[in-house]
Amino acid sequence: VARLLHNSYGKSRVRLTKVTRRDDRHDLTELSVDIELEGDFEATYTEGDNRKVVATDSMKNTVYVLAREHGIESIEAFALHLARHFVERYDQVEAATVHIAQDAWLRAEVDGRPHPTTFIGGSREKRTCTVSHTRGATLVEAGIEDLLVLKTTDSAFEDFVSDEFRTLPDAADRILATSVTARWTYDADDHDWNECFGRVRAAMLEVFARHFSRSVQETLHLMGSAALEACPHAAEITLELPNSHRIPFNLSPFGLDNPNAIFVPTDEPFGLITGTLTRD
Amino acid sequence: VARLLHNSYGKSRVRLTKVTRRDDRHDLTELSVDIELEGDFEATYTEGDNRKVVATDSMKNTVYVLAREHGIESIEAFALHLARHFVERYDQVEAATVHIAQDAWLRAEVDGRPHPTTFIGGSREKRTCTVSHTRGATLVEAGIEDLLVLKTTDSAFEDFVSDEFRTLPDAADRILATSVTARWTYDADDHDWNECFGRVRAAMLEVFARHFSRSVQETLHLMGSAALEACPHAAEITLELPNSHRIPFNLSPFGLDNPNAIFVPTDEPFGLITGTLTRD
Amino acid sequence: VARLLHNSYGKSRVRLTKVTRRDDRHDLTELSVDIELEGDFEATYTEGDNRKVVATDSMKNTVYVLAREHGIESIEAFALHLARHFVERYDQVEAATVHIAQDAWLRAEVDGRPHPTTFIGGSREKRTCTVSHTRGATLVEAGIEDLLVLKTTDSAFEDFVSDEFRTLPDAADRILATSVTARWTYDADDHDWNECFGRVRAAMLEVFARHFSRSVQETLHLMGSAALEACPHAAEITLELPNSHRIPFNLSPFGLDNPNAIFVPTDEPFGLITGTLTRD
Amino acid sequence: VARLLHNSYGKSRVRLTKVTRRDDRHDLTELSVDIELEGDFEATYTEGDNRKVVATDSMKNTVYVLAREHGIESIEAFALHLARHFVERYDQVEAATVHIAQDAWLRAEVDGRPHPTTFIGGSREKRTCTVSHTRGATLVEAGIEDLLVLKTTDSAFEDFVSDEFRTLPDAADRILATSVTARWTYDADDHDWNECFGRVRAAMLEVFARHFSRSVQETLHLMGSAALEACPHAAEITLELPNSHRIPFNLSPFGLDNPNAIFVPTDEPFGLITGTLTRD
Repeated sequence: VARLLHNSYGKSRVRLTKVTRRDDRHDLTELSVDIELEGDFEATYTEGDNRKVVATDSMKNTVYVLAREHGIESIEAFALHLARHFVERYDQVEAATVHIAQDAWLRAEVDGRPHPTTFIGGSREKRTCTVSHTRGATLVEAGIEDLLVLKTTDSAFEDFVSDEFRTLPDAADRILATSVTARWTYDADDHDWNECFGRVRAAMLEVFARHFSRSVQETLHLMGSAALEACPHAAEITLELPNSHRIPFNLSPFGLDNPNAIFVPTDEPFGLITGTLTRD
Repeated sequence: VARLLHNSYGKSRVRLTKVTRRDDRHDLTELSVDIELEGDFEATYTEGDNRKVVATDSMKNTVYVLAREHGIESIEAFALHLARHFVERYDQVEAATVHIAQDAWLRAEVDGRPHPTTFIGGSREKRTCTVSHTRGATLVEAGIEDLLVLKTTDSAFEDFVSDEFRTLPDAADRILATSVTARWTYDADDHDWNECFGRVRAAMLEVFARHFSRSVQETLHLMGSAALEACPHAAEITLELPNSHRIPFNLSPFGLDNPNAIFVPTDEPFGLITGTLTRD
Repeated sequence: VARLLHNSYGKSRVRLTKVTRRDDRHDLTELSVDIELEGDFEATYTEGDNRKVVATDSMKNTVYVLAREHGIESIEAFALHLARHFVERYDQVEAATVHIAQDAWLRAEVDGRPHPTTFIGGSREKRTCTVSHTRGATLVEAGIEDLLVLKTTDSAFEDFVSDEFRTLPDAADRILATSVTARWTYDADDHDWNECFGRVRAAMLEVFARHFSRSVQETLHLMGSAALEACPHAAEITLELPNSHRIPFNLSPFGLDNPNAIFVPTDEPFGLITGTLTRD
Repeated sequence: VARLLHNSYGKSRVRLTKVTRRDDRHDLTELSVDIELEGDFEATYTEGDNRKVVATDSMKNTVYVLAREHGIESIEAFALHLARHFVERYDQVEAATVHIAQDAWLRAEVDGRPHPTTFIGGSREKRTCTVSHTRGATLVEAGIEDLLVLKTTDSAFEDFVSDEFRTLPDAADRILATSVTARWTYDADDHDWNECFGRVRAAMLEVFARHFSRSVQETLHLMGSAALEACPHAAEITLELPNSHRIPFNLSPFGLDNPNAIFVPTDEPFGLITGTLTRD
């Protein structure tokens, strides 16, 4: 009665620390890799026949072997290596998708100078990428997750729908805080990934700081536009901006005013604004 | 240069406790609602014009108002109410997607008898649904998340690809543990949702317990087939089965054998097996 | 200038799955062990001299070895084995503290009958114990963590301090929800641990369900008293009861009443009530 | 039969955002407050008599009111205000303990210059303090949590106990990574808290970077000594250093060497090294 319409399998959360030992300093890369394969695997689903199945444990081994053999110049380059490897090495693999998230380690400063072999944990922000590779095509997507930003002014939310379900007042000057998730596709599979990433990130931060926001939606649109302008190789960008509400605490029961000074940060519920921008 | 290709916005993690006070007992429902709207909202993105924007705070209010007015017979019925409300109430809304996750509270037993007004926290398992409603169409999807199951025998993984990346030995008798995520679509928007849910869940559990698994893929296929068979209204089912590895601890350095008795449970990395089954 | 006043070290989160294969069924135990040693270890702190240091990796190995050799009749018995082992095996160890938390797996029911080799994840509730063993003395403490309970009625909070900081109204009938943490000491190191645990847990649940609560503090006192009464070997019990607030949603702006039916569950901030009871 | 030996209650996770609007810039403080009171509260436990109970909701209100009235120069100063308030305002309160954890927000840089009103999320690191105040005495404790640091060289672990439970080889050059938790007491209740905090943190980081570590224990001792030396007002310091293992991946099955380049970061199990240092 049932037919297998789609299937895939892989290994997730393969964590890797890579130390590159140079003469004057060490470099540190820490990341987590997810691998997903599609192909001629129906027999294991329908008959328990595993002869074409590459064990997910072998996928895990492959991550460490390729990291040793090729290094990790950027997560995009490493994901391309991995995705191509699986498609080229195994006839039964038709498509490989490799997602990588990189942790933010910073070089420690000691006495005001960067230390050659000591690192300090950075923010929650992660640099991400997803490479999808088939025999015919390759798609490289880069991204940012959990980039927390907050502006204490130059944000309003006014003149929205007033009806029987509304209790929220207009706000002419509110705190705007969000945790940016951005993902953008590239127009080719060979760019200076690190430079493009830096440009997109800087452009989004600059616009976030400098514009006057009349809605999170407007902020999203401006950030996305700035990103596409900053990197001509970025083809399309999707942003997800949760509204990390800071709610003014009502001090009037205590005979005090609240001149936009005291807020309650809340995690839930939260607004979630999304949008995808492309080039015209 | 940039064009807004797609946009949506909404409120996530609207949490709700509903108590229904009957003569002989109280019933308890606890859930979390996510709402997402699509429609004529481009002006707020491109011009900061909010006149058509229904505040996400108003969406939150709506959840509590409709819960009071309609009750919550099932999460599917409540999601249908909500999704239809947003599309019917606001001309600018073209599509509403409502996702609900319900926590597992159990009636407490006291002296071996169910207590009328006391509840005890159930497992991590959540019952979920997603209703997508536009002016033309309605799609109801139901699901389960985080259903942990484990079998101590009747699971093997053998005869898979042997190559230079493999180090994992064949296993003729291993522990199979997973955290089931399942989502299935319905063929209509009016069924006995609670009964269908119960049948699908029971069928998947029964097959998990009774079959001999030659791969997680085979287990997935059997569970999905059983689900479709158990509920004739389920049209298509997608399963995601992480392989929650229990790795035999090597006791030979200590002069001991390990007769499939002592294992190390690990959270990462983990295999992830997915598949979608449909009716033939 | 600085003197080492106190030191200890150990291994945390040693996770273990134990399967006991009986003729008619398998039993499953899953737990996480923390070990902490104190003793003559000052040289490694002050001089980097490791000759007396038992590696935390060796402690981890010891958990698996002793689980194989002794089995796990109860977490208390296993913790006693481990704690005594470290003190007896190593002259430099003066005290060993072993903490164990056991996950709640339930035997799966298939067609209404318990299945011999299939298990289903239970609630978040954990059974815990801490054994402290020195050459002179042994202390066994048992406990429960994350036992979620909720009563929909028979709970009030009234007539508390009214002053300029109060905005909370009296509540004559509110929801009382909490996540019980309890820890009790035993008067000796040799009891039927499983039986005592069951009695204490049942007594606390029964009193939670049946009493009328005028404050979380009163609930705590009644639960603690019932626990000491249920198990004559329990010497002293400490309870921590977070007040997992369910706040009535104000429906009056929408022209609706709220007859104690619609609540918002919140995670933070939360009240936290603690108390320790002993025998008179 | 049961006697109440000890009791306390309070409010946890009271979250607060404070914006100070200066002419040339805004300052941002975000923190979470826990309050715990002890005193004459036995009647609510034993008789449900709440007349002396200050609602935890009122404690929450007090946090926002005092933040408005006094500002937050440092978390230590704010915790002192709060703790003294509860003891002085309510006769029935004998002791108040206030714990505060401050989130790490950084001023955003735009075009290489600090932006006056935009902030970016910092690391997971939290600055903490605990103030304990009774009618007779005040104790101020400051601290750091979740400060992630990693050194890629100058760390070894050799010559530790070799016995039948050991499988870990000596390591002459390993990665040392930890998440520092430190708490130190002050010798008085009136210091420049921000300056002391800065000195202690910088001293610990410097020593972590520069020393050669023969054990995590030695690292702890050196960090604690440096902290006490850096701040003459710090009386006693306790450090907890989890060993966040980076395990060399064995590449020999794949015909490759691993010159200290490729590691697997693991979260569990983990070593945990603790120590308390005081002045001689």
